Amino acid sequence: MRCLYFDGRLKYRADYPVPVPAPGEALVKVLYAGVCNTDREIMAGYKGFTGVLGHEFVGVVEQGEGWEGRRVVADINLGCGLCPACRDGLPNHCASRRVLGITAKDGAFAEYLTLPLANLRAVPPGVGDLTAVFAEPLAAALEICDQCHIRPRDRVAVLGDGKLGQLVARVLALTGCDLTVVGRHSDKLALLAGLAATATADEAAARAPFDLVAECTGSPAGLAAAQALVKPRGRIVLKSTFAAAAVLSSTYWVVKELTLVGSRCGPTDAALRLLARRLVDVEPLIGGIYRLADGAAAFDPPGGLKAIFDCRQP
Amino acid sequence: MRCLYFDGRLKYRADYPVPVPAPGEALVKVLYAGVCNTDREIMAGYKGFTGVLGHEFVGVVEQGEGWEGRRVVADINLGCGLCPACRDGLPNHCASRRVLGITAKDGAFAEYLTLPLANLRAVPPGVGDLTAVFAEPLAAALEICDQCHIRPRDRVAVLGDGKLGQLVARVLALTGCDLTVVGRHSDKLALLAGLAATATADEAAARAPFDLVAECTGSPAGLAAAQALVKPRGRIVLKSTFAAAAVLSSTYWVVKELTLVGSRCGPTDAALRLLARRLVDVEPLIGGIYRLADGAAAFDPPGGLKAIFDCRQP
Repeated sequence: MRCLYFDGRLKYRADYPVPVPAPGEALVKVLYAGVCNTDREIMAGYKGFTGVLGHEFVGVVEQGEGWEGRRVVADINLGCGLCPACRDGLPNHCASRRVLGITAKDGAFAEYLTLPLANLRAVPPGVGDLTAVFAEPLAAALEICDQCHIRPRDRVAVLGDGKLGQLVARVLALTGCDLTVVGRHSDKLALLAGLAATATADEAAARAPFDLVAECTGSPAGLAAAQALVKPRGRIVLKSTFAAAAVLSSTYWVVKELTLVGSRCGPTDAALRLLARRLVDVEPLIGGIYRLADGAAAFDPPGGLKAIFDCRQP
Repeated sequence: MRCLYFDGRLKYRADYPVPVPAPGEALVKVLYAGVCNTDREIMAGYKGFTGVLGHEFVGVVEQGEGWEGRRVVADINLGCGLCPACRDGLPNHCASRRVLGITAKDGAFAEYLTLPLANLRAVPPGVGDLTAVFAEPLAAALEICDQCHIRPRDRVAVLGDGKLGQLVARVLALTGCDLTVVGRHSDKLALLAGLAATATADEAAARAPFDLVAECTGSPAGLAAAQALVKPRGRIVLKSTFAAAAVLSSTYWVVKELTLVGSRCGPTDAALRLLARRLVDVEPLIGGIYRLADGAAAFDPPGGLKAIFDCRQP
């Protein structure tokens, strides 16, 4: 089958074997797969992954104990099922987890993938394929609301107007909070018209302090920027993952009594509910639709938003 | 009057002028004053403070609009009273605050100090002087409970068996949580007999993961140690302040979905209630009682616990 394979270099391959589902797994024909910044970080060395990239997808089950023909998205973390984290219902924190397209499990930039049936989530009928492909990153955005009580009175800033910042803004707007998205790209900020105030970094400083700042820049500099905007005793939610470390002073957080909340994968079921209720409009975030054969060229669509692979296109 | 004055170097002075209370301030005769690690950090360059050191004390009001003769401790943060933080009841987060013995306000290592009447807290009759002098650091320990819901089922580790770790352990023990104090000094850990399990770093690793880790080491290395002990989605409370920064990767907190909570000054009234109820036994933590003239020699009492100045002793 066709796929995008990474082994230190990204390669388009047309000769990759179709995966064979293990017991309890489904074989899924991938319809669309989305590109995430994590894919770029993996290509920059994050996680040391070798295999088929891609963890955002919508597909149709071809084999799988009664799931055949159903459109699905998925929880991408494959826990061991036995450890305390798995028994607590947190396979995404299993120490020996595999993660689709990220850790020890071939991913979605391919014609086919396999996943345990327990990871599959049926897509509601009213949700189109190009909307459903956003379920995974939308769930990651929604994880903020699972971890933090966002109050309607809160003044909230989202740092970053890219793919993740856009989804986080759309989710946080639902809380009724006083929302400002801080970014550098007027075209991306324009996509938030009617949902959030938008601001440059300088403008945001003038509106500070905020009760909560969601750091979605994807950059090691984002935390320092968030610290400058959050009020004493406020919260900073960290969504960015990257290979680099930074020099940081925890004393600042002690003196300001800040709370930092690391936030990763989220509740897929709830993301699908928001999409089915048409409360989050994601398709304007699509920057381009590509063929797997386009390879790395697809990773930077014009406007910098979400690149989607149509995995059926040869 | 006698005092310990810091201007880049710690100096015992017998010629310092008795402070004159400003309108709304009381003149307090200091009975006892305690030494905190923050005093050492100030001497190492933290905060760039010049003036009389010391922010833990118990005293008797000599002048002060009806407070004369009352034994007092105090909230040590002097807010402007006008800014949003002050109006929110958080003068300890006023951007232009002065702080007793820490920022722009002469402190308690002296025969006399002045403080606004609003900062004074009357010591209940049953609380002795050598217990009351712990009100400020006990409140700082109790701040953890103000910021974090500690559940009776939680497995909690306190990193550090020093002055602050000892107080934090005593406060957290009150929640009923499963508590382990991690330290390197068997004599200090012995003070926790009956209150908490104790462990070396290696022993703590064998008991990990913990739901919450309170970092009280006073060292930039403490956060990394806390990260190694906390479970995914767990909480790390940061109590240490120091001049140094550290190289840290926020990606780790994102992937583990950790919550980091900076924690500083706390509720003095509640600390006094715990002392009055005899629920926290602090006097065993006294490492020695000194005269102001003993100067820096008092900062490292045998056993490394709390040094107390008897400010009346010539």
